Amino acid sequence: MADFRFELISGGASGPRLGRVHTAHGAFDTPAFLPVGTQGAVKTVSPEEVRDAGAQAILANTYHLHLRPGERLVRELGGLHRFMNWDGPILTDSGGFQVFSLSELRTLTPAGVTFRSHLDGSSQFLSPEIAVRIQEDLGSDIMMVLDECLQYPATYEQASASLDLTLAWAARCKDAWRGRNALFGIVQGGGYPELRLRSVAGLRAIGFPGYALGGFSVGEPPALMYDLVGATAPHLPEDKPRYLMGVGTPADLVEAVDCGIDFFDCVLPTRNARNGSLFTATGPVNIRNAAHAADPGPIEPGCPCAACRSYSRAYLRHLALCRETFGLRLNTIHNLSYYQRLMAGVREAIAAGRWAAFRDGFRIAQAAKRD
Amino acid sequence: MADFRFELISGGASGPRLGRVHTAHGAFDTPAFLPVGTQGAVKTVSPEEVRDAGAQAILANTYHLHLRPGERLVRELGGLHRFMNWDGPILTDSGGFQVFSLSELRTLTPAGVTFRSHLDGSSQFLSPEIAVRIQEDLGSDIMMVLDECLQYPATYEQASASLDLTLAWAARCKDAWRGRNALFGIVQGGGYPELRLRSVAGLRAIGFPGYALGGFSVGEPPALMYDLVGATAPHLPEDKPRYLMGVGTPADLVEAVDCGIDFFDCVLPTRNARNGSLFTATGPVNIRNAAHAADPGPIEPGCPCAACRSYSRAYLRHLALCRETFGLRLNTIHNLSYYQRLMAGVREAIAAGRWAAFRDGFRIAQAAKRD
Repeated sequence: MADFRFELISGGASGPRLGRVHTAHGAFDTPAFLPVGTQGAVKTVSPEEVRDAGAQAILANTYHLHLRPGERLVRELGGLHRFMNWDGPILTDSGGFQVFSLSELRTLTPAGVTFRSHLDGSSQFLSPEIAVRIQEDLGSDIMMVLDECLQYPATYEQASASLDLTLAWAARCKDAWRGRNALFGIVQGGGYPELRLRSVAGLRAIGFPGYALGGFSVGEPPALMYDLVGATAPHLPEDKPRYLMGVGTPADLVEAVDCGIDFFDCVLPTRNARNGSLFTATGPVNIRNAAHAADPGPIEPGCPCAACRSYSRAYLRHLALCRETFGLRLNTIHNLSYYQRLMAGVREAIAAGRWAAFRDGFRIAQAAKRD
Repeated sequence: MADFRFELISGGASGPRLGRVHTAHGAFDTPAFLPVGTQGAVKTVSPEEVRDAGAQAILANTYHLHLRPGERLVRELGGLHRFMNWDGPILTDSGGFQVFSLSELRTLTPAGVTFRSHLDGSSQFLSPEIAVRIQEDLGSDIMMVLDECLQYPATYEQASASLDLTLAWAARCKDAWRGRNALFGIVQGGGYPELRLRSVAGLRAIGFPGYALGGFSVGEPPALMYDLVGATAPHLPEDKPRYLMGVGTPADLVEAVDCGIDFFDCVLPTRNARNGSLFTATGPVNIRNAAHAADPGPIEPGCPCAACRSYSRAYLRHLALCRETFGLRLNTIHNLSYYQRLMAGVREAIAAGRWAAFRDGFRIAQAAKRD
């Protein structure tokens, strides 16, 4: 952990914060959005394009890389950074989320979870200790504890029992951690503020270099997420980074920053790009729409991304209709750029002391888009 | 045609030639290989990556662009160069090849060919005049006459009758051509040297700024193609460029240069890349093979391409197994680079007066690969 350090530049236990997360592979400025490189590649784009879009750190998925190509191979080849040619910080999840969402025939015991690989049906076992070891083999800069990921909605009793298991696993992960890199605890507790606070207290008692908020973006209304994040974040240690996992829309990011969250990851910009749905300041653009057939303009006027600099909506629509993968890449470059520009704007607003105006202006623009 | 000019730097009517094709969008050095951008994009790669691989000119497919998005739209948007963000020379085929290979329910008359679109089944009509007009609307630098593309094998009678039609169409294309850009005649005649020479004579009588050799790479043995090209090329005007359409393998290129061909196009490097088949000096590499699973080395040691500079065979195999499109792109970058390095080597050998040694060395290496 010698290389991991969180520098809180401004803000406190609640409300918007400005910071910098330092790792053995460089630092990233917070609030930050981390693009998702599920299988050791951010889909359709190169590491240079991810960097050019403004991203300083990425996420990779432990579950996917464990099943293929396997963390031992990655370690033999010099670690995930070298393998995928990304020299910046890499955060890995624990694999738990995919075990609970992708795999079949799960058997959960206090020891861990047995599941079938979604690739070949082979039987696999994941425990807190194994999850940490896999992430260490990958060479992750920020690792996550193994947690049970609840379905939404869950009853109070289900969420409470699950939380007990998750806290026990968090303690085992901490014990298994060799102290290199960083290990984050994950706040669970479903939709129940009381359980969320019990989770925070339990994790603080164990002690982690950072804290993630899990179990969101699983189907709950956005307002419930904002309430829960707003109720939870102030109880997290002020001097440690807070990471809201798997979130979210641009509005989600702004609201969560307002609650004191430091960073995010989500497949939304990259996945939507591949579906032809492009983010702009004036609302989403579906590039496949006939309205763009003869449009010589860029996706978003003024956007400095490589897609907007050199290609028209008409061309991007043509590529989408032709299923040319180059179009998926240009769309992805734009959406990643949009998210990174949003976060840069967030950081500038906090730094300049005009966060409330930024947030309120964003909310008004969001409301206008819905009209 | 003011902008089109062929500069023959060395060589004559037969044997290897060194040259430069000048167009309104810059020049390319010959012998040259043109990557194929079927639908207005070289599959999986950006124009910058095509250029970085060493390509100076590309081919686009009239049939595909006519059906989607349509040449009028492309013209309204400023032409194909601006549409696809490629500012170098663009060669277009006439659309004939795809009419005869992709579409159904063709009806051929002296007036032209009626066919069904492979996209939506709509009835379409292509004539020599329409083929020229489409290519002019696209803004092609080098256009092709409409020709009938024979199946292989064809009888002498079939090939002869087809040739008569193709020559009549060539004359009509010349008449329809407004003199901008360049228009190439296409030598046909099937597998019959006598018909090939009749085709050359007929085309020379009409007169074109350049000559293409069509009807190859349609299933005939390579040796037959080399014989036919070798028998045909010396009868083409020495001072005009010769283009062997849709060819071919690295060996095909070397043998055809030896016969006096100036440039080529083919989907082989890009298509093979997407299938995981990568060209190297020591023979093809199938990147999906288990042998590469833990290989930290590049596709081809010493290759300066972006794929070989930064990525291992192990990573490329991983991407292939995961069906990550970023892998298709890296594979394509390598194969395009391989082809362009081959052509650069060809040009250097001719310029240095050591063509025979280059060709013989290449043949010996090819034979060794087959052992």
